[in-house]
Amino acid sequence: MKYLYEFIGTFFLVLTVGLVVLEPAAPLGFAPLAIGTVLAVMIFAGGHISGGHYNPAVSLAVFVRGKISRNDMLIYWGVQLVGGAIAGFLVLYLKGMPTVTPLNIDLVKVLLAEFIFTFALCFVVLNVATAKGTEGNSFYGWAIGFTVLAGAYAVGTISGGAFNPAVALGGIVMGFFSVSTIWVYWIAQLAGAVVAALVFKQAHPGE
Amino acid sequence: MKYLYEFIGTFFLVLTVGLVVLEPAAPLGFAPLAIGTVLAVMIFAGGHISGGHYNPAVSLAVFVRGKISRNDMLIYWGVQLVGGAIAGFLVLYLKGMPTVTPLNIDLVKVLLAEFIFTFALCFVVLNVATAKGTEGNSFYGWAIGFTVLAGAYAVGTISGGAFNPAVALGGIVMGFFSVSTIWVYWIAQLAGAVVAALVFKQAHPGE
Amino acid sequence: MKYLYEFIGTFFLVLTVGLVVLEPAAPLGFAPLAIGTVLAVMIFAGGHISGGHYNPAVSLAVFVRGKISRNDMLIYWGVQLVGGAIAGFLVLYLKGMPTVTPLNIDLVKVLLAEFIFTFALCFVVLNVATAKGTEGNSFYGWAIGFTVLAGAYAVGTISGGAFNPAVALGGIVMGFFSVSTIWVYWIAQLAGAVVAALVFKQAHPGE
Amino acid sequence: MKYLYEFIGTFFLVLTVGLVVLEPAAPLGFAPLAIGTVLAVMIFAGGHISGGHYNPAVSLAVFVRGKISRNDMLIYWGVQLVGGAIAGFLVLYLKGMPTVTPLNIDLVKVLLAEFIFTFALCFVVLNVATAKGTEGNSFYGWAIGFTVLAGAYAVGTISGGAFNPAVALGGIVMGFFSVSTIWVYWIAQLAGAVVAALVFKQAHPGE
Repeated sequence: MKYLYEFIGTFFLVLTVGLVVLEPAAPLGFAPLAIGTVLAVMIFAGGHISGGHYNPAVSLAVFVRGKISRNDMLIYWGVQLVGGAIAGFLVLYLKGMPTVTPLNIDLVKVLLAEFIFTFALCFVVLNVATAKGTEGNSFYGWAIGFTVLAGAYAVGTISGGAFNPAVALGGIVMGFFSVSTIWVYWIAQLAGAVVAALVFKQAHPGE
Repeated sequence: MKYLYEFIGTFFLVLTVGLVVLEPAAPLGFAPLAIGTVLAVMIFAGGHISGGHYNPAVSLAVFVRGKISRNDMLIYWGVQLVGGAIAGFLVLYLKGMPTVTPLNIDLVKVLLAEFIFTFALCFVVLNVATAKGTEGNSFYGWAIGFTVLAGAYAVGTISGGAFNPAVALGGIVMGFFSVSTIWVYWIAQLAGAVVAALVFKQAHPGE
Repeated sequence: MKYLYEFIGTFFLVLTVGLVVLEPAAPLGFAPLAIGTVLAVMIFAGGHISGGHYNPAVSLAVFVRGKISRNDMLIYWGVQLVGGAIAGFLVLYLKGMPTVTPLNIDLVKVLLAEFIFTFALCFVVLNVATAKGTEGNSFYGWAIGFTVLAGAYAVGTISGGAFNPAVALGGIVMGFFSVSTIWVYWIAQLAGAVVAALVFKQAHPGE
Repeated sequence: MKYLYEFIGTFFLVLTVGLVVLEPAAPLGFAPLAIGTVLAVMIFAGGHISGGHYNPAVSLAVFVRGKISRNDMLIYWGVQLVGGAIAGFLVLYLKGMPTVTPLNIDLVKVLLAEFIFTFALCFVVLNVATAKGTEGNSFYGWAIGFTVLAGAYAVGTISGGAFNPAVALGGIVMGFFSVSTIWVYWIAQLAGAVVAALVFKQAHPGE
């Protein structure tokens, strides 16, 4: 069932991303609140079953940290990417083909922005959900989900604020990102995840 | 007293829905924040007495999951619907008869939107408030209330974002929804509840 | 020290109310978020010392419920009202004498709105901070503070959304409310507190 | 590792401050939400390693309260200030040299505003993160981070709402504050920290 839970969580994350970003009648500025919230509530709902990653970069960080097998990581990646893509198509059906003007991106800044905040996201995940020093807390979902909220407000106009390869894939389906630049997002996100895991391990010897 | 608590919680939920949606001076976009919040605080206040459902779809999901008797579910439905209707009339008194332009709805999309996010709502409820793996947490109210927040931002312009038959009934009183299409809402919401309960039971054998 | 803590908490509550309401450059709509938040954080900071009432209506409800002596309630009232008034004068110094147009109020609707949401506030306080069934939780501050947030969005344009005699007094100092109608606020608020305490006691026999 | 954690947390705080304040396309009003949030999540992520100060004024308050050595305080100050400055330069690279119009400040009001809300911030920190009466709670990060949110809404147009010498330093780098008036901020912030620690100690004898 953990694979199904990962699918459900990633599906709702990407669905909400697409719907709030493509909502012309929606007031500007609430999109990051809705996105951070849906991630948080899905983590609270699914964390005890699947860990509540909903993000291939997070699964990679948890794998480097040693809390998930390589096999499970690969299956997680699969269901997360499929969930993101299906959500993207559902958004297209619900909202019609969008006329999103892709961000006029500066690839170096995108790389930096996605690296920095995916690092922050994985750093928060590992510290609040896998460290002995924070065991048994009731804040992990909010801490993780709202890191995305802060990042989306901070670099949303620089990179779009994905911090998640499954969101990036859904974003391609919905026309937010172009296929030709998606590799910048993925490299930056996976690199942020690995660095976060290495910092975490250094700070938690023996865990 | 649990019936009174269900009445109070549903009353405040629908009252707040009506007042913030009908507030022309209120800044756009804060309605989902107010609605998700009032649901969350009422769940924290009443959860230990009545379970804090305030929503016939949630009561149905909890019944299918096996944590409430059929009798109690039916009484809950009654007080929830009465609470929602009374709140609707009080809103009419406080704000005057509104001139809401009903959403120009696409019934298939309404069905989908209400099904999907009522599923999400009941899925979150069952996982954060009835599962052994999340027992004793301090986040259940926020997780549940803010699922409605996220859903309202996501599909508010598609279906109005009710996810709750008592809110739908109050919405009829206040002129948000038309009587002729209300069955679509109710079918979608109850179906979402049942599917969420079945998924939950599959993932929690023996609980 | 508990009296000092009540003074500090009420001072910061009314100070923030005044500053965000009188801020012409501030974007509309964030005032309830700031107000609910400052109440929540002050409750978390002072709850273990003074109970974190910061509101004569809450102190009355806690007295009726039997968790504070009459003597302490009266001293709490004193320091809360003094804290609110001093905060009001400080706001006048920081922002200059405001040119607030008092709400064109309908006294019956004010009475209803302040009664209903002060009831909600005290109902939440008693259930999340004094009931055995919710002991040891980490959400009480948010639940209480954000009840004010929801109420302010719901009835802010009807009554101003005070729900607190000390806020009402500070509001007189700052010109939000007129002295001639303040009794309506106080009666409604204290009545809401008493009713909430009676309902709570009925639902928690023997506590 | 605690020094690195302090660096990371302060870096992300100042980075987010700069990016959301300098974002012309961002909707007004969400900046305090993003800033309070990033502080909260970084406290949750780093609190178990470094205490999660990210603010020389907080480190001073914790030192006066007796929970950190003078040596550690001085090293914390160093890494916090360096983290803030580096974040400031990164913001300049990502957003280009800003054309911020410095606030037309009234030094007495700045002194008051920064003193009052840095007092509030340190008062909340000491009570929720170092008092026996609130041990083991899951709300400390939100309580601390969202005190900054409330303060930023309350006095953002009076003083800019720094409450943190490292943020003030980053603000000089980014052109928010002028070097000639920064001493007012630092004096007010450190004074607020000391007073908060003295009040706290008075209320918690023997801890």
